[in-house]
Amino acid sequence: MKKNKIIIVGAGLSGTLLAIRMAQRGIEVSLHEKRSDMRKDAWEGGRSINLALSERGLIALDRVGLKEEVLKECIPMKGRMIHSETGELRFSPYSGREEDFINSVSRSGLNITLLDEAEKMDNLTLHFHSSCQKVELENGAIHVKNMQSGEVRREEADLVIGTDGAGSAVRSSMMARTPELLFNFSQDFLRHGYKELSIHPGDGGAFKIEKNALHIWPRHEFMMIALPNLDGSFTLTMFHPYKGKAGFDELTTREKVKAFFEEAYADLLPFIPHYLDEYFENPVGILGTIRCLPWQAFGKTLIMGDAAHAIVPFYGQGMNASFEDVRVFDDLMQEMGDDWDKILPEFERRRHANANAIADLALDNFMEMQDKVADEAFILKRKIEMELEQTYPDYYSKYSLVTFRPELPYAQAMKLGRLQDKHLLDICKNGSIHQMNLEEVHHQMIGLQDVIEMA
Amino acid sequence: MKKNKIIIVGAGLSGTLLAIRMAQRGIEVSLHEKRSDMRKDAWEGGRSINLALSERGLIALDRVGLKEEVLKECIPMKGRMIHSETGELRFSPYSGREEDFINSVSRSGLNITLLDEAEKMDNLTLHFHSSCQKVELENGAIHVKNMQSGEVRREEADLVIGTDGAGSAVRSSMMARTPELLFNFSQDFLRHGYKELSIHPGDGGAFKIEKNALHIWPRHEFMMIALPNLDGSFTLTMFHPYKGKAGFDELTTREKVKAFFEEAYADLLPFIPHYLDEYFENPVGILGTIRCLPWQAFGKTLIMGDAAHAIVPFYGQGMNASFEDVRVFDDLMQEMGDDWDKILPEFERRRHANANAIADLALDNFMEMQDKVADEAFILKRKIEMELEQTYPDYYSKYSLVTFRPELPYAQAMKLGRLQDKHLLDICKNGSIHQMNLEEVHHQMIGLQDVIEMA
Repeated sequence: MKKNKIIIVGAGLSGTLLAIRMAQRGIEVSLHEKRSDMRKDAWEGGRSINLALSERGLIALDRVGLKEEVLKECIPMKGRMIHSETGELRFSPYSGREEDFINSVSRSGLNITLLDEAEKMDNLTLHFHSSCQKVELENGAIHVKNMQSGEVRREEADLVIGTDGAGSAVRSSMMARTPELLFNFSQDFLRHGYKELSIHPGDGGAFKIEKNALHIWPRHEFMMIALPNLDGSFTLTMFHPYKGKAGFDELTTREKVKAFFEEAYADLLPFIPHYLDEYFENPVGILGTIRCLPWQAFGKTLIMGDAAHAIVPFYGQGMNASFEDVRVFDDLMQEMGDDWDKILPEFERRRHANANAIADLALDNFMEMQDKVADEAFILKRKIEMELEQTYPDYYSKYSLVTFRPELPYAQAMKLGRLQDKHLLDICKNGSIHQMNLEEVHHQMIGLQDVIEMA
Repeated sequence: MKKNKIIIVGAGLSGTLLAIRMAQRGIEVSLHEKRSDMRKDAWEGGRSINLALSERGLIALDRVGLKEEVLKECIPMKGRMIHSETGELRFSPYSGREEDFINSVSRSGLNITLLDEAEKMDNLTLHFHSSCQKVELENGAIHVKNMQSGEVRREEADLVIGTDGAGSAVRSSMMARTPELLFNFSQDFLRHGYKELSIHPGDGGAFKIEKNALHIWPRHEFMMIALPNLDGSFTLTMFHPYKGKAGFDELTTREKVKAFFEEAYADLLPFIPHYLDEYFENPVGILGTIRCLPWQAFGKTLIMGDAAHAIVPFYGQGMNASFEDVRVFDDLMQEMGDDWDKILPEFERRRHANANAIADLALDNFMEMQDKVADEAFILKRKIEMELEQTYPDYYSKYSLVTFRPELPYAQAMKLGRLQDKHLLDICKNGSIHQMNLEEVHHQMIGLQDVIEMA
C-alpha cells in the first residue's frame, strides 16, 4: 500500500527515525545522507559522543517499536553528582520519584540501531555519500550529488523533509528565497565552546566514578560534565569560554593546562592521567541556537529537528525534541492522512513555540549548571522540590515538567516551571519557607498550576 | 598625504558619505558600486523614494561640508498630520519647539549630491557596475566582478568597509566563516509589506495637502503615510499586512482595491485619481530587521550602515543611524589615527547597542503610528509632552530624545524615553494627570532622567 513518496535529507538520529516511521506507514521513503555509512566508517567530528535520552524521545522510539531494544543500551542516570572545588560530592536526584531517570546513550550506537532497522524495510532506500545541493521547494525535488562519483541527479517526490541538522541544506534553500517566504532566521552562539575528554574504564569495565549519575564540576564561569558509557568509560565535556582566565584561547600549553586542571579539577585528575594528550588532540566545538520560521513551504518542503531548531545541550533535550517532532508529525498523519497542504502548516503551528521554549530553557539551564547548582538557596529549593515530588504525586518541578511529563508541551512546561521556580526560590531566599509546612508549600505551588491551566 | 588605502563596497548614501570623509582625511579610497551610475541610469526598485533626514544625519553631512547644500533640497516637516477615518485632520507637532523639525529629502537627489562631491576628489576612485563577489577578510582584499565585461579582479587595501546594505556581500563573507567568527545573525520580517503610490503636484507645483508635515492615515491594522517632494508631489506609502482583510494578498482586483480605498482612505481619493494604475504597477516591498555581531574581523574588514543593522522605517532613522556610523567612525580616527586593530573593535563597541536600540525603537513606532496616534490617552500624552517641551528647555519626549538630541546615544535615548513614555501614559490613563500642574509633571519626568543618568 504505497500511497506516497517522501524524500528525507539527513540520516542522523531524527531523520532515520522519521524514515522508519514513514516506511511503516506504507510510504515510499528515499533517505539521503551526505556522509558515509557510519556502520562502515565512523563519522568524524563536531557531535557529542553520548546523549541523554528521556521520556519524549522514548515515546517516539516506542512508536517505531525500538524502545526496549534501545533501553538495553542505556545507562540510567538518576541525578546530578556535583563535584565541589574541594572535592566533596553531593548527589541531587532529578526527581523525587525512583522511577524517574534519564538515560545515557551512545549517539553512534543509537544511530546504528536505527539504520539497521531502516535497512530491513522494503519501501525505504538508503543513499550514503549523497549530498543535497538544493531543493526545488514547490516541486518536492532535490538535486543530490554523489560525493564519490561527483554525479548530480534530480529526484522528485510528494514531499521533501530536511532532517539535515544545524547546517541544513534544505533550510538554506528556503533562506535563499527569503523575500518570498519572509524567512525569519537567527543564529546565536555562546561565548563558551566545548571540548571532550574521557575517563577510561577500570579493570574489567569498572566505573571509576558513580555510574548512575550525570557528573558536574560547576565552577561558576565554566564547568565540566561526565556521562557514563556502557564500557565503563565516561565522556567528559569541558564547557569553557573562549577568552579570559579559563578560556580555550588561554589554555594553550601543556604547562598552562596542567596548572589550570590542578586548581580547577583536582578531584578528577586521578581518573584522567592521559588528559593532556586528549586536550591537545580534540577540537573545540561551538555551541549555538538556531531558530527560523517558516519551517515549510508550498505543501512540498518541511524541515524538522536541528535543521529547524538547533539548541544548546544543557537541558539534555536536543535529541528528545527532535524525536518528539517525529512523534507529532506521525500524530498529524494519523489525524489528517497525507494532506500535506494541511499537515505542514499545522506541524509548524504545533511545534514552533515549543521549539522556542526548549531553546530558551536550555540557555537558562547553562546558567544553572555552571553556577547555581552550587548556590545555597538553590540547593534548598531542590531539596524542597524532591520532598514535594516524593510526597505529592501531582507535583513536578520545572526539570520534571520538561523531562518526565512528555504529555505537556515544552512551552507549557516552561511557563509553569518558571513560575514555580521563581516562587520557590523566592521563599527559600527570604526564609519564609521555614515558617511553612510542606503541605502549605504544595498548596501554593499547585495554585500556580491552576493559574496556568486557566490561562 | 596619502597614509592609507580603504576599499568601500556600496556607493549608496552612507558608503558615499564615508568615502568623501575618508578622502578628505587624505586616505586613498576605492569605492565600488554594483549598480550603474545613478546619475545616468535611475536605480531600480526596492528602496523608498524619499526619506526623513534629521539631526544625527545632518551632523554627519556637516562633517563633510554638505549640510547647507543638502538642506536647500529638503522640505521641513514639523509634525504628523493625522487623517482620521471620517476625514478630520489633527496636527501633532514633533516637538514643542519651533526650531525642531525633520526634513523630507529625495533619496536619489541626496545620493547624487554625494556622488558629485565624491567625484571631485583626486584620491577617490568610483567604480560602477563593480560587484563584490567575496572578501578575503584578513587580507583587506575583495574580488570584484565587472557587471558589464564579466571580468573578475582582486583588489587589496589596508581596510575593506562594507556599506552595501541589507543584502550585504561583505557580511555574507563574514557569515560564511560563522564557526570561526562566532557570527551571530538574525533577520526578522514584519507580516506587513509596503507599496508606494503618489499624489501628483497641483498647478504650478502646488502642494495639494499640507506641505510641512508627514501625513498619516492610521487605521489600526494598517496605515498610509505621505512625505512631500520638492516638485509639489507627495510619495505615499501603504503599510499593509500581506494576509487578511486589508492584505495585499486580498487586494488583487481593481474592484476590490477601489472598494477598499473608498472605505479606508476616503479623504485621500480626490488627490489620487490615478491610484488604481499605480497600485497595480508598483511592487510590494518587504520590511525587516537585520542584526549581527561581530561587525569586524582581523583589523581588516568592517561593515556599517544597513549591512550591519537594517531596520524598519518607522522612526525615520535608518539613514540617520547609518550617517551617524560615519560620524562615529570619523571621531575614532580623530582619536586613534589609523590603528585599525583598535578602531574596528571600538567602533563595534560604541555602535552595536545603539544600533539594536534604534532597531527596537523603530519596531515600537510601527505600533504607535498605525494605532496609538489615534488613541485618547496617547493624544493627551502628546499634548502634555508639547507643553513640557514648550515650557522647559530641559525636557525632551522620547521622540525628541531620539530625533533632536543627537548627543545622546540611541541606547540611552531609548532607556530614558521608554521610562518617560510609560510614566506619562500611566498618569494620563489613570487620570492623576488632572490633579497635577505642569511643574509637578516636569519634576516627575526629570526625576526619571536622574535615575538614568546615575545608572
